[in-house]
Amino acid sequence: MVASCRCRPTGPGQASPGWRVSGVPGLSNLHSHAFQRALAGRTEFVTGAMAEDNLWTWRREMYRMVDRLTPEAYEAIAALVYLEMLQFGMTAVCEFHYVHHQSGGAAHANPAEMSDRLIAAADRTGLGLTLLPVLYAHGGIDKPVEPTQQRFVHSVDDYLKLIDTLRSRRTGHSTLDVGLALHSLRAVTPDEAKAALAGMAAMDAGARLHIHVSETTHEVAEVKAGLGARPVQWLLDNVGLNDRWCLVHATHLDSSEIAGSAASGAVAGLCPLTEATMGDGFFPLVEYHGAGGAWGIGTDSHYSTSTAEELRILECGKRLELRRRNVIARPEAGREVHTGRVLFDQALAGGEQASGQGGGALVPGRRADLVMLDPPPPPPAPGGRRARCATDGGALLGARPARRCWTAGWRS
Amino acid sequence: MVASCRCRPTGPGQASPGWRVSGVPGLSNLHSHAFQRALAGRTEFVTGAMAEDNLWTWRREMYRMVDRLTPEAYEAIAALVYLEMLQFGMTAVCEFHYVHHQSGGAAHANPAEMSDRLIAAADRTGLGLTLLPVLYAHGGIDKPVEPTQQRFVHSVDDYLKLIDTLRSRRTGHSTLDVGLALHSLRAVTPDEAKAALAGMAAMDAGARLHIHVSETTHEVAEVKAGLGARPVQWLLDNVGLNDRWCLVHATHLDSSEIAGSAASGAVAGLCPLTEATMGDGFFPLVEYHGAGGAWGIGTDSHYSTSTAEELRILECGKRLELRRRNVIARPEAGREVHTGRVLFDQALAGGEQASGQGGGALVPGRRADLVMLDPPPPPPAPGGRRARCATDGGALLGARPARRCWTAGWRS
Repeated sequence: MVASCRCRPTGPGQASPGWRVSGVPGLSNLHSHAFQRALAGRTEFVTGAMAEDNLWTWRREMYRMVDRLTPEAYEAIAALVYLEMLQFGMTAVCEFHYVHHQSGGAAHANPAEMSDRLIAAADRTGLGLTLLPVLYAHGGIDKPVEPTQQRFVHSVDDYLKLIDTLRSRRTGHSTLDVGLALHSLRAVTPDEAKAALAGMAAMDAGARLHIHVSETTHEVAEVKAGLGARPVQWLLDNVGLNDRWCLVHATHLDSSEIAGSAASGAVAGLCPLTEATMGDGFFPLVEYHGAGGAWGIGTDSHYSTSTAEELRILECGKRLELRRRNVIARPEAGREVHTGRVLFDQALAGGEQASGQGGGALVPGRRADLVMLDPPPPPPAPGGRRARCATDGGALLGARPARRCWTAGWRS
Repeated sequence: MVASCRCRPTGPGQASPGWRVSGVPGLSNLHSHAFQRALAGRTEFVTGAMAEDNLWTWRREMYRMVDRLTPEAYEAIAALVYLEMLQFGMTAVCEFHYVHHQSGGAAHANPAEMSDRLIAAADRTGLGLTLLPVLYAHGGIDKPVEPTQQRFVHSVDDYLKLIDTLRSRRTGHSTLDVGLALHSLRAVTPDEAKAALAGMAAMDAGARLHIHVSETTHEVAEVKAGLGARPVQWLLDNVGLNDRWCLVHATHLDSSEIAGSAASGAVAGLCPLTEATMGDGFFPLVEYHGAGGAWGIGTDSHYSTSTAEELRILECGKRLELRRRNVIARPEAGREVHTGRVLFDQALAGGEQASGQGGGALVPGRRADLVMLDPPPPPPAPGGRRARCATDGGALLGARPARRCWTAGWRS
């Protein structure tokens, strides 16, 4: 895929009156570890030997798989999950990519080998790709990397060289963008973070900046002990946040962090089904959304690749927690505010903000990322006093695949 | 559908070694209000005039639809949702049926008109049906019915006549069963409940007995104030519970009710997505399952008709609440206990117990209710050190339709 189509204005008379189409803008999936698709469903058991079961026990299983991951498998798994994303109406993905080197830690002959595999997978399937090579340097604050983490590690210099190489791959690739990712404040020191950000800014002052942050209370405690502040507060105080930042997870925020990150314009990268399967806890959705915070949806470890299901578990989880119905929609005088529409609009805007792909709306000049829906059969509607809001159905009824997708005007 | 096939033993050599099939027993959906399918997705909004939004505000919208529901629409909606159930691997349903009369409350010329419509819908689609006409007599404890509730109301005598009529419809219908349902302890007095149960027992001592119970804290408080005990405790103390009972929702239980109902053998009728959309609160799954309590799954208001999605939101909601992974699987020495398998087995057994349809297992003598799955494509599996548990995938990965269903040996 080398060409790109943008939305054009249509004149009167160009719409066919008899043509019923149910189309929506394609969404950007704002957080993916493509290779974890091969692990989904494989860690859902307990044994007598397990004293606890949480993100950290899951991570051991994930590392076991990483150890045997070849470039060929990396590409094959990515192609599968990228195809699944298209099937469920996503037209671009932010790939948070940290498996850079050979097993054991030696660089590949082509240091960008694994990144190039992701680009190939996106090309094969027709998915837009915002590639986020991850800077990973430590196994925790003041902790060396473990043997299983050797495949992830870069010096800041080598990391910036990789970014530079990957930026050269954009020639002729209108659906490929390259941004920066810090794995977390556990895996990168303050000095490394600042050096990497400065290097990235010198290459592209508009690059997207992603970081895993505050997924678990354990991580919040470790960062607070090591850096003297909770993770999001530390970022606000030490590097500054703005609308090019995506705070992935951001599950555990105090009220000052909610206010600060919402006001900064950063997008919260929520991954509802992954965060649920990991038992991370509830994101303060009502407070964050109420403060005007931007957010979007990632499918992360790919238990699902359905935006609808991710939005449903986000809204429904909060309803269970708060014991009331429509939680994201805030009452406004004189009109109905529809939950499905709010969820979809936020996911669309937040995904576009995090990916910078240039889609996110079907308006002239935006990239032509379009999804044609195969809506559930319209039920007979006795007493239906109002037109159904299509996005309510899409976001809150059972997940169904999209009929067809176009990315940059190209049909997948 | 008038014939019925049962599973037969197969001898050695009858399996075709090259034939790979992924089949599981069909599930019984233990709680459905079929007509509410037409409302799913239509109440997901707020307005400036709403002071609160919960089960009771939703109920106003539901009543508005009930008011205009014709027998023809009742059958058409039921046929649609029964087809959707088959698409997602359910082969029978317990229909909790309370819209009996004409709008305004007059009986139809055929008092079983609306029930017969449900039987017709099940016949048209090939779904097994455990029809549960609902006894509804009051608008609350010591409250008359509201005008919108007139369509639901029976005296105990007329109710038992309806049951008797419907039992006659079973001739030649091997996939139709008839049980008793009390709407709730709010809608039926203790004397009415006891009289109806005695009348049912005289006709069929093995009939299934269903009741809505303890869905909201509001209901628990009303019953406690009116009858002197929490709802499940009242049932334990005053009518007795056993394995023919299905306690629908049972969301709010104290520890004595958990112990008592689990020990009674009754099945808890969980409707996870409906209970989530309504903001009911969390069922004490870990405690109830730990006490050996039986439970199964209903799709109730049909936001989804996917068992997999219902199970996923049940398990994942609890993971978010409890902040840990695999919650339903309990560690056992020397073996892996898989979450998906536990969830599926419980839903299968609980559904069969609640429906009494005679399926629930692919063993000789049980009814041949079979679902052939269309599994997600197997991902490349580097480092997959153990065989994947198919039910983990089915229950915990994204919902996908079943390929094909057979009910009583008949392909739907």
